[in-house]
Amino acid sequence: MSKNLTSRAEDYSKWYNELVVKADLAENSGVRGCMVIKPYGYAIWEKMQQALDGMFKDTGHQNVYFPLFIPKSYFSKEASHVSGFAKECAVVTHYRLKNAEDGSGIVVDENAKLEEELIVRPTSETIIWDTYRKWVQSYRDLPLLYNQWANVVRWEMRTRLFLRTAEFLWQEGHTAHATKEEAIKEAEQMMHVYADFAQRYMAVPVIKGTKSEAERFAGAEETYCIEALMQDGKALQAGTSHFLGQNFAKAFDVKFANREGQQEYVWATSWGVSTRLMGALIMTHSDDNGLVLPPALAPIQLVIVPIYKGEEQLAKLDAHVAPLIAAFKKRGVSVKYDNRDTHKPGFKFNEYELKGVPLRIAIGERDLENGTYELARRDTLTKESVAADAIYDRVDALLEEMQQSLFDRALEYQEAQTVSIDDYASFKAHMNDKGGFVLAHWDGTAETEERIQEETKATIRCIPLDAPEEEGVCIYSGKPSKHRVLFAKAY
Amino acid sequence: MSKNLTSRAEDYSKWYNELVVKADLAENSGVRGCMVIKPYGYAIWEKMQQALDGMFKDTGHQNVYFPLFIPKSYFSKEASHVSGFAKECAVVTHYRLKNAEDGSGIVVDENAKLEEELIVRPTSETIIWDTYRKWVQSYRDLPLLYNQWANVVRWEMRTRLFLRTAEFLWQEGHTAHATKEEAIKEAEQMMHVYADFAQRYMAVPVIKGTKSEAERFAGAEETYCIEALMQDGKALQAGTSHFLGQNFAKAFDVKFANREGQQEYVWATSWGVSTRLMGALIMTHSDDNGLVLPPALAPIQLVIVPIYKGEEQLAKLDAHVAPLIAAFKKRGVSVKYDNRDTHKPGFKFNEYELKGVPLRIAIGERDLENGTYELARRDTLTKESVAADAIYDRVDALLEEMQQSLFDRALEYQEAQTVSIDDYASFKAHMNDKGGFVLAHWDGTAETEERIQEETKATIRCIPLDAPEEEGVCIYSGKPSKHRVLFAKAY
Repeated sequence: MSKNLTSRAEDYSKWYNELVVKADLAENSGVRGCMVIKPYGYAIWEKMQQALDGMFKDTGHQNVYFPLFIPKSYFSKEASHVSGFAKECAVVTHYRLKNAEDGSGIVVDENAKLEEELIVRPTSETIIWDTYRKWVQSYRDLPLLYNQWANVVRWEMRTRLFLRTAEFLWQEGHTAHATKEEAIKEAEQMMHVYADFAQRYMAVPVIKGTKSEAERFAGAEETYCIEALMQDGKALQAGTSHFLGQNFAKAFDVKFANREGQQEYVWATSWGVSTRLMGALIMTHSDDNGLVLPPALAPIQLVIVPIYKGEEQLAKLDAHVAPLIAAFKKRGVSVKYDNRDTHKPGFKFNEYELKGVPLRIAIGERDLENGTYELARRDTLTKESVAADAIYDRVDALLEEMQQSLFDRALEYQEAQTVSIDDYASFKAHMNDKGGFVLAHWDGTAETEERIQEETKATIRCIPLDAPEEEGVCIYSGKPSKHRVLFAKAY
Repeated sequence: MSKNLTSRAEDYSKWYNELVVKADLAENSGVRGCMVIKPYGYAIWEKMQQALDGMFKDTGHQNVYFPLFIPKSYFSKEASHVSGFAKECAVVTHYRLKNAEDGSGIVVDENAKLEEELIVRPTSETIIWDTYRKWVQSYRDLPLLYNQWANVVRWEMRTRLFLRTAEFLWQEGHTAHATKEEAIKEAEQMMHVYADFAQRYMAVPVIKGTKSEAERFAGAEETYCIEALMQDGKALQAGTSHFLGQNFAKAFDVKFANREGQQEYVWATSWGVSTRLMGALIMTHSDDNGLVLPPALAPIQLVIVPIYKGEEQLAKLDAHVAPLIAAFKKRGVSVKYDNRDTHKPGFKFNEYELKGVPLRIAIGERDLENGTYELARRDTLTKESVAADAIYDRVDALLEEMQQSLFDRALEYQEAQTVSIDDYASFKAHMNDKGGFVLAHWDGTAETEERIQEETKATIRCIPLDAPEEEGVCIYSGKPSKHRVLFAKAY
């Protein structure tokens, strides 16, 4: 197949949009802002889900399921949450359709109007805390460590596949604790879990930190986040974990009797990652030839393509490859043999390059005679000849090597694109010309943050966890500052 | 814990409702008709999902994800589908909320009215076939063998946890084929997959068959189903698989070029099972002591409860049990050690009985001395003493035995409750007094079917696949009939 993919240098944004569609990951649907996740894209998402779900369970969490709909009045209960979330929402007002009297089709039955409108969940804190009230009486009932995999809807005006869609898939963890310390520890733990997942599975290096007040989740006292840097120098927030204090417990009256028998409000966290991670994965590693997938998340890790003339040669290759496939599968390698007779090898090579399959074996009659295979790797586009008896070990080694090398390359890029800047003119110029991460001093006020955003489009991505104490002055206001924060333009 | 569970004999329906809540499976939410699936209930559902998903993939299917919302106009396109599905639906009419001008809370922003209303999917044929039009051009693009795990909403007026809820979780397979034969084969295959799952994992015996025209899915040419019989003599439809003919392809103009280059409409199937299976699972096996779970779907297969006095004894037992747990886990047994000091052993025994944990080991100081364990099984409530060195094999054997014995018991019940009846008076009396499955002759008309339902509340559950050819006369009309069909009152 011919790729016809716009290059990154030419138009990064166009490259991304084309790649998502051409690599068969997702496409826009007939419903404004909602995507269809195609089999190949969904297979990657399933691998992400599986790894994350295992990590959540290893840290003591269980899955649950709460309703899709939230009564409108629930949103009014937590003051800051309402302004953050109850705005651009899908609102269900009726529960019946009927045939139009003039025979023109179906219409909404005005007699079936809900007494109270239902909101399609944009996030589930409100309905979950309304339920936790019934589940928590005593300190013995705590902690509640629950997570749900669900779809949510936020009526975004400008949407892009995976990065910003009206409906998206995610997981949302919602935990309840007896003490503030325990809740903070949980919120921090989940940030670390997300970072670990991003780095080990996605091969995406991230900066861990906390959000400025202006960037915090609506209703949170602290938002922890992981931030990744894309190849165009823009940051992407890849996961957030919130310490919610007692805000939702107070809003929904969730109290518990402590060991001394006194009533206290419960402490909360919530944390989530979404199909947006697909965007981060795609944009971190892929190139002008198409997708590049880390082996840990690749639905197909190895593709085998026969090179042949005529049915007889193909039959011979089929017979030779069958035990090879069985052996790879047994070793846990996810392998595909593409012996479609409707497409030429060159077409197939292009297709699997576009789809980011990490390794490819091409095998023809001459290879059979020589006892070798031609093994190609997707990230470097290099080829090597491997002796037949060494192929299994070599494939294992290369898959491991690629996983590490994709991470190393991305980390090298991120480090190269992270600079410290101390004056505002340079800051503006840098944001305008190069982008990337900029470590700069900030006076800690929302006013300065807003001005900088207005003038440069850069936002504070986070206050890095490991930011060293350092006397300095705010690049914008010149007021004193104790540590640098991380600025970038962001998705 | 004290169970306080209504007995089945006293009030079967009340028993079920109480059990679902007391066994911590699910509860009603603050949103009319929508349930909260609690961690223990969700863990069972996850086990079901995992097994089914594996079976779908083994039969060549891949997962995808289509939008939650469907434009209203899509429903008008398939004539019979609209009357079946586009009625009791949640309708999204607006996409924004705002603060009320009088400060009374939040209200729907009337300026944010959708041009076309969106329906929360009650099932996804319409949006999927609208998309398949773009995915299918040639016979080379076929078949499409896709499935999605999703939530759907049908505005049911009378709801019951798991059995009938406004929102429920399910999977829906949607396949596209080049020929009628292939599509029929697919629909039949998925009925067999569902039956296999129900029998092997849920230990629920089912009758396979096809639906009468009146009971068919809206838009289907044939509906295959599996029907189970609950302990109160009522049937429960546990899964359906539909041969949709070319109805959706014609409605959404999905054509392909066949090998001869001619344009043909594509053939379709769809098939689904839902959280309703949880209801079937609960009602088939459970008893007046609570839930009884088949080992294959039990989140906890074995619970170990220490019997002790004082911390010293407990510490000794803890130390003894640790390697036991590790060994069980290694053997793939999902085991829980409940050494909570806040509850007495009797309370714990009751709790795990209520939750249907298949096996329980109680272990005290005397057992340590004797080198034995007391092993209790949930289904028969019997206990045995097992020598310490035989415990692993015995647990494995018992788990296997229970899985089989639950199925055998349920099958025995189903067979005992299935009778052939040849006159309408007996039929009416039987349906009124005993219920169960009744095999009877039917003249094949919708009129007769409707009358029988009006007069007896029994419906035709299915025309069994294995119904032998047999000359007879319809119990209602006396007209000739060629085989018996399966009647029952149903959930």
